[in-house]
Amino acid sequence: MQRIGALKRIAFDEAKFDGYLVLNSSNLIYFTGFPGNAALLVTRDGEATIHVYSVNYEQARAGGKGFRVERVKSGEDLLTKIATQVKEAGIKNLALDVSGIEGWRSLKKNTRGEVRLKVKPMFVSQLRAVKDQEEIMLMRKAGDLTSFGMEIAYEVLRAGLSEIEVAAEIEYAMRKHGSYGTAFDTAVSSGSASAFPHGGCTDREIRTGELVVIDFGAVYQSYRSDMTRTLVAGKPSEKHVKLHTIVKKAQEKAFAAIRPNVNARDVDAMSRRIIEEAGYGDCFVHGLGHGVGLDIHEPPTLNSASKERLQVGNVVTDEPGIYLPSYGGVRVEDTVLVLENGAEKLTKGPYGLGRG
Amino acid sequence: MQRIGALKRIAFDEAKFDGYLVLNSSNLIYFTGFPGNAALLVTRDGEATIHVYSVNYEQARAGGKGFRVERVKSGEDLLTKIATQVKEAGIKNLALDVSGIEGWRSLKKNTRGEVRLKVKPMFVSQLRAVKDQEEIMLMRKAGDLTSFGMEIAYEVLRAGLSEIEVAAEIEYAMRKHGSYGTAFDTAVSSGSASAFPHGGCTDREIRTGELVVIDFGAVYQSYRSDMTRTLVAGKPSEKHVKLHTIVKKAQEKAFAAIRPNVNARDVDAMSRRIIEEAGYGDCFVHGLGHGVGLDIHEPPTLNSASKERLQVGNVVTDEPGIYLPSYGGVRVEDTVLVLENGAEKLTKGPYGLGRG
Repeated sequence: MQRIGALKRIAFDEAKFDGYLVLNSSNLIYFTGFPGNAALLVTRDGEATIHVYSVNYEQARAGGKGFRVERVKSGEDLLTKIATQVKEAGIKNLALDVSGIEGWRSLKKNTRGEVRLKVKPMFVSQLRAVKDQEEIMLMRKAGDLTSFGMEIAYEVLRAGLSEIEVAAEIEYAMRKHGSYGTAFDTAVSSGSASAFPHGGCTDREIRTGELVVIDFGAVYQSYRSDMTRTLVAGKPSEKHVKLHTIVKKAQEKAFAAIRPNVNARDVDAMSRRIIEEAGYGDCFVHGLGHGVGLDIHEPPTLNSASKERLQVGNVVTDEPGIYLPSYGGVRVEDTVLVLENGAEKLTKGPYGLGRG
Repeated sequence: MQRIGALKRIAFDEAKFDGYLVLNSSNLIYFTGFPGNAALLVTRDGEATIHVYSVNYEQARAGGKGFRVERVKSGEDLLTKIATQVKEAGIKNLALDVSGIEGWRSLKKNTRGEVRLKVKPMFVSQLRAVKDQEEIMLMRKAGDLTSFGMEIAYEVLRAGLSEIEVAAEIEYAMRKHGSYGTAFDTAVSSGSASAFPHGGCTDREIRTGELVVIDFGAVYQSYRSDMTRTLVAGKPSEKHVKLHTIVKKAQEKAFAAIRPNVNARDVDAMSRRIIEEAGYGDCFVHGLGHGVGLDIHEPPTLNSASKERLQVGNVVTDEPGIYLPSYGGVRVEDTVLVLENGAEKLTKGPYGLGRG
């Protein structure tokens, strides 16, 4: 309910709306703890109401403490029902977090054009970007589980295993220690697939001397983590070591730059310069990082176009990479929490190309 | 490219559009094999073009065979670029599969109102609802992996384990046999949480005599499967057996009714009647099932409001349930393929409340 209070200050006191509609499922978890196909209508003066289909009604009543819960009957349209409540509550200026074109038209039609609608995702995402103490505790847990999974990756990786078999061991280890799932599809990308930043994970057999980019995260009570290491099955070549040294240095430079009030694009630039100076600027084909929390990608974004400044409580990834088409790729990534006077890695562990 | 041909017949020959824009990621996989943040523009006469950010450019070039691949530069806006190509290609009537309100406005603005836009997801989803031979092969594999995971669930379930520990064993077994991941968050919902159709999976310890609803699916090369069994940790009570017998009968009745040309709502009604006659009609709080494929929920839908008729090549779930708030729930589910003269279960295995 504190979070609802913060939303009311932003959306109502500052931005002068008198209603806010939450439809995005991570935003619903953030405010209510309840996931799933539902909507939350917050009004300036009245109660906050969760609208939910019959299938999830009992769960919302059990989980959504402090909220009124309204049942949407089978065959009834969620947005039509909400439009009715919007009119009843006398809302004239409604902001919402997300809308498809069809939902937008339905709201417009069913409020007969009498309600001004605006999509304002930032009202919520600016709150979510700054983690509170409870969230930080959950993200530390997710980070610890992820770091443990990576230890297992170092232990098991060898030529002859398929990418999927390596993923199996990582995910099993995290699950056995309490992970609520995977933060995104675990990537174990070997050989030339390691040159694709989103190289995936297939039944391909890993061969001796290949680069393997391993990128995954645990989940703890809906909070995600994100970590990458690049390993070599067998003995790394000189070129592997060279690329890895550059990427590691780029990652360290960025980490050292992460602190409150720094421009996100400047942190990106710190690491990019290292890779450019080494002659691989064209091969760092993505931004340095992104926020992490209930979603695996959320504000703030760290790339050359970022306009955000980092703040205490942001959790972001630091993940430079060099990708050489048809040769392979190297990426090193940690999830990092911004502190009063610097930063703390939530994912920890060795960086080497192998156990050695 | 056959699939592009089928889309062209529906969108251009029949519905008289002259461009189709694919933005949904499962639709992108369906046409191009390439996932990720991209767009596919299909024009009546010209080439089909994948527009993709730098981060995925090399992967799209390697994977998107037969398509032109255009790079969207960092800082460039995907939809602005597409609007330019829409104008260059002389498209006047553009249909698209999905659009947020902001993307819609961007397209409108950047085509200066000279292009008629319509959201037409069904042009693609009607194709995807009918699986071809290659897709059926992949879904059989996903079904086999899922059935194997359920065998493991029966083997390992016992009081004293946490829900997450049971999920760990299921997922590990599927992974070791080649699963590409989980079709959705594995649910192991025990005790009173089993009364929630989406009861989740937590660190809660399973206790003797509790109902445990286990609902999960494997993935094989992007194709998903979906299966549920309800088990009891220890000896089932008479009431457990009674509820399970009703649900199982409702599931069988529906399965027997699944064949080409049947109304989806009639299949739902077949199973619903069994549960109603047993006096639990109010406790079957969801539709009978949904289509499965690249997405875990896709057309056709099987509930009392469905307007679709089943067709050969549809793959749907058959999953009635009874949920008694604060007591527990029972659901039984298989993924089912519609054949010329009936139906085939893609998920197989015992239905009992335990190994016995």
